[in-house]
Amino acid sequence: MTGFDTVLIANRGEIALRVARTCRALGLSVVAVCSTADRDSAVTRLADRTVHIGPTRSSASYRNAAALIEAARMTGAQAIHPGYGFLSEDADFAEACAVSGLTFIGPSADVMRLLGEKSAARAAMAAAGLPLLPGAVEPVADATEATALAARIGYPVIIKAVAGGGGRGLRVVWRPGDLAAAFAETTANARALFADGRVYLERYLTGARHVEVQVLCDGHGNGVHLGVRDCSVQRRHQKLIEETPAPGLPAEVTGRMAGAALSAALETGYTGAGTFEFLVDGAGRFSFLEVNCRIQVEHPVTEEVTGVDLVAEQLRIAAGEQLSQMDITPRGAAVECRINAEDPAHGFAPAPGTLTEFAPPAGPFVRVDTHAFPGYRIPAAYDSLLAKVITWGPDRDTALARMRAALAEFRVAGPGIRTTADFLAGVLSDPRFVQARHDTRLLAGPEDGTTRSEPTRLPQKQEEQRGESLPRG
Amino acid sequence: MTGFDTVLIANRGEIALRVARTCRALGLSVVAVCSTADRDSAVTRLADRTVHIGPTRSSASYRNAAALIEAARMTGAQAIHPGYGFLSEDADFAEACAVSGLTFIGPSADVMRLLGEKSAARAAMAAAGLPLLPGAVEPVADATEATALAARIGYPVIIKAVAGGGGRGLRVVWRPGDLAAAFAETTANARALFADGRVYLERYLTGARHVEVQVLCDGHGNGVHLGVRDCSVQRRHQKLIEETPAPGLPAEVTGRMAGAALSAALETGYTGAGTFEFLVDGAGRFSFLEVNCRIQVEHPVTEEVTGVDLVAEQLRIAAGEQLSQMDITPRGAAVECRINAEDPAHGFAPAPGTLTEFAPPAGPFVRVDTHAFPGYRIPAAYDSLLAKVITWGPDRDTALARMRAALAEFRVAGPGIRTTADFLAGVLSDPRFVQARHDTRLLAGPEDGTTRSEPTRLPQKQEEQRGESLPRG
Repeated sequence: MTGFDTVLIANRGEIALRVARTCRALGLSVVAVCSTADRDSAVTRLADRTVHIGPTRSSASYRNAAALIEAARMTGAQAIHPGYGFLSEDADFAEACAVSGLTFIGPSADVMRLLGEKSAARAAMAAAGLPLLPGAVEPVADATEATALAARIGYPVIIKAVAGGGGRGLRVVWRPGDLAAAFAETTANARALFADGRVYLERYLTGARHVEVQVLCDGHGNGVHLGVRDCSVQRRHQKLIEETPAPGLPAEVTGRMAGAALSAALETGYTGAGTFEFLVDGAGRFSFLEVNCRIQVEHPVTEEVTGVDLVAEQLRIAAGEQLSQMDITPRGAAVECRINAEDPAHGFAPAPGTLTEFAPPAGPFVRVDTHAFPGYRIPAAYDSLLAKVITWGPDRDTALARMRAALAEFRVAGPGIRTTADFLAGVLSDPRFVQARHDTRLLAGPEDGTTRSEPTRLPQKQEEQRGESLPRG
Repeated sequence: MTGFDTVLIANRGEIALRVARTCRALGLSVVAVCSTADRDSAVTRLADRTVHIGPTRSSASYRNAAALIEAARMTGAQAIHPGYGFLSEDADFAEACAVSGLTFIGPSADVMRLLGEKSAARAAMAAAGLPLLPGAVEPVADATEATALAARIGYPVIIKAVAGGGGRGLRVVWRPGDLAAAFAETTANARALFADGRVYLERYLTGARHVEVQVLCDGHGNGVHLGVRDCSVQRRHQKLIEETPAPGLPAEVTGRMAGAALSAALETGYTGAGTFEFLVDGAGRFSFLEVNCRIQVEHPVTEEVTGVDLVAEQLRIAAGEQLSQMDITPRGAAVECRINAEDPAHGFAPAPGTLTEFAPPAGPFVRVDTHAFPGYRIPAAYDSLLAKVITWGPDRDTALARMRAALAEFRVAGPGIRTTADFLAGVLSDPRFVQARHDTRLLAGPEDGTTRSEPTRLPQKQEEQRGESLPRG
C-alpha cells in the first residue's frame, strides 16, 4: 500500500482484531498495543509486534496519545488506525499524528474538529442542506435562553453536550418546570465528562427510527454511500441490534437521506469512512443528528450486504488511493446483535469473568466478530462487548431466522458471566420488531419517557462510571 | 415445512453440523446420529435428539440403512438428509426410505440408480446432448474388447468402475502393453470395493481443468444452475482447493456447460441439488464425467457467491416446495481450502489425535465449516477432513489474499496432529495457480503420469484402507 506498510492499531477488543485481519489480507504489517489487562488478548497473537502501552486504565493506555505515537515511532509503523471509541474521534490526536509524520486513518483533524463539536456540526450540515430538528445551532448561554428556546421549539426537548456524542452527555426534558435544573445538571455533567460545559438544545423526537448513512470519501473528490443502517433497537441510547436495509421505510426516503448525507460529506471535505445519523419520524421525515468520524460497531451489516470491506477502504483512502468501487449493489439484508457481558436481570450490570466455555455460532451467512476465546478473562475495566453476531439473508425474515438459530447455538459460560444473548433473542421474537413496527422506544421503560407524566432520567451515571462505555455507533 | 418438521441427519463431521444449522434456521427439529467414536461430537450438542446408531465402523453405523431408518421411526423424524459420502448416493437406501414412508432428501431412487451406474449415466447424458470423452457407453466385457476399444480411442485411457465415483475404483493406462493387467486389476478391485466388477473405458484427458456445474431442480419442472466450480487442484483425484467462478475460462464456455448440464438434469427428471462434473481441455472443449446426486464438500463457494443456501433448497425441494429463487446473480469470487488432518511430509498419511488448540480464522468474508473444537479427539476411523475454510472477495485475487491471511491465522495443535494448511498455503502462492495457468496436473508427481514413460499407479490401496475416504466432491 502506497504511503505505509505497517499499521499500528490504537485499540483493543474485537475491533482491533477485525482491523488486524484486514491489514493482513492487504499484506500490511500490524503493530498491536495493549494495556496491562490485555496482555494476552487475541490481537497480540495476530500482530507482528505488540507494544505494552501502559496500565489498564485507558487514560494511561488506549487514550494515551503520546504513548501511542511513541509506540508507532519505535516500531516503524507509519499509520495509526484508531478503531472506535478511545481516541478515534479526537481531533487533537489526529493532528498530533500528522505532526509526527504518521498517517491517521480517518478524516482530517479540521473536519473532525468541525463535526466533533456537535452544535457546529449542526450548523455545517444545515448549510449543506441537511434537515435538522428544531433547535439551536449555537451553544445555549444559560437557563433563561434555554427556556425561551424550548418554548419556541416545543417540548420534549433534549439538552446535549457540544462536545458529546455516542449517547453520552444528553438529557431529555419533558416539562418547562424541569428545564432549569436539567440545564444546570447537563452543563456540569458535560464539564466533567468532556472538559467542555457548553450545551445546546433540540426538539426531542419520540417514536422515531434511528437510521444512519454509511459514506466513503477519498481524497480525490470521489464519494459513495453504502446505504443505511437502522439502529432503532436501543436501550438507554445504546444500540443493541442493527440492520440494513431499514425495514419498512420507503426506499425513496432512505435514498434521499443517503444522497443528502453524501453531498454533505463531500461538501465538508470529509475523507474516509463516516456515518451520518438521522432520526426518521412516522411520516418519513428525516432530521440530522450527528456525524461519526470513524468506523462504527455496526459496520459489518453494511459489509455483508454490499460486499465492501470498509476497513480496507479506510486504509486505501488513508494511503491516498482512490475508492476501489464506485458502484455499490446491495444484496439482501443483514442484522447484527451485540452480545454484551451484562446481566439483563440486574439492570444490565457488567458481568465480567473468565470464560470456561466460549463457542460462537458459525455456518452459512453467519459471521461473528469477537476477541474472546475459551479461557479468556473479560476485563472489568473496559466496555462489555463480548461478540457481535452478524447474519445475512436474501431478505430480512431469513436473516432474522438465521440470527435466532445463531443465538441459540452460542455457548458462553464462566463463573459470574452473564450475557445479553437471550435478552436479544427475545427482542428478535417481539412482533413489533418482527413486523418492523418498532421505533427507538421499543425497549424503553417508563423512566425513558414512554409516559409523558414521568420525567426522563437517563442513566448517565452508570455510563460514566464505566468510563470506557462504547460509542453509540 | 410441508411434509416434515423433523429431519434425521444420517452423517457426521462438518456436514452433519452444517445441515443441522440450516434445519435450525428453517425451524425444523434435528435428530443427529452418532457412532461410538462420535458420541461427543458437535452436532449432538445442536440436535434436539441424538441416536447412538452403532459401533465406530461405518458399515455398522453411518452406512447401516436399517439402523438409520429405525432411528427415524423411533424419533418421529419424517425426513433423512444423507449429507455426502456414506449412503448419500445409495439408491437402495433412498428406496428403503421411501418404502418406510420417509422423505429421502435427494433425487428419486430411479434417478440415482441411473446416474450412479457410471456407464449408464454416460449413455443418458450423451442422449441428453452432453459431450463425452471418447469411450464406452456400455461396460466392457473383457480385456480383448478393452484392448480393441483403447486402440480406437487412443492412449492414455482410464478404466473406471461402473459402480464407482468420487475418485475411487479407477486406473489410468498409458501403454497398450499395460492394458490387460490393468483391466484384470481394476475389475477385481471394483468387485471388492463396490461388489460390482463391471468397468468401462474412456479417453484419459491430461492437462485439463476439472469444472463442475451446480444445479437445483424441484419437483415442479423448475431448474436453475448456480454457475460452476473449478476443482482442478487435486492430489490423487482428491480435491484440495475449489473455487468459483472458474478462473481464466471464458464465461461463454462455462455458460454453455452450465446450460447443457441443466438441460440434462431436467431431461433426466433430476430433483434436488446435483453436480455435473466435466473436464475442460485447453481449447475450451468440455466433456461430461459424472453426476454427483448429493450436496458436495465444496458447495459453500457457490453459496458465498450466489447467496443461496443449498441445503435449505434441498430441504424445500424434498418438502415439495418450488425453488425459492429462479434468478441467480453471482457476485465476486470464492475459494475453499480443505484442511485435512494429514501429514504432507509423510505422504499425506492421516494424522489424527486430540486437539489441544483449535482456533479457526474468522472475520469479514471468511467462513469456516468445521465440527472440531478445542479438546476434540479426531477419530482415526473416518476421513481426515478437519475444516473447510472459505473466503470470498469481489474478485479472485481478493478472495485468495483473504485465504492466505485466514490460513496464516488458523491455529491447530495437538500431539501427533499435522494438517494440510501450510501445504495449501504453498499452493495458493504457486504462480501457476495464482495466474490460473494450472490444470489437474498441478500437484501430480511422476507417478501420476506427468511423464508418459511411467505407468500410472493410483494409490487406491490407501484410499480403500481408510474406507471412509471422502467423496471426491
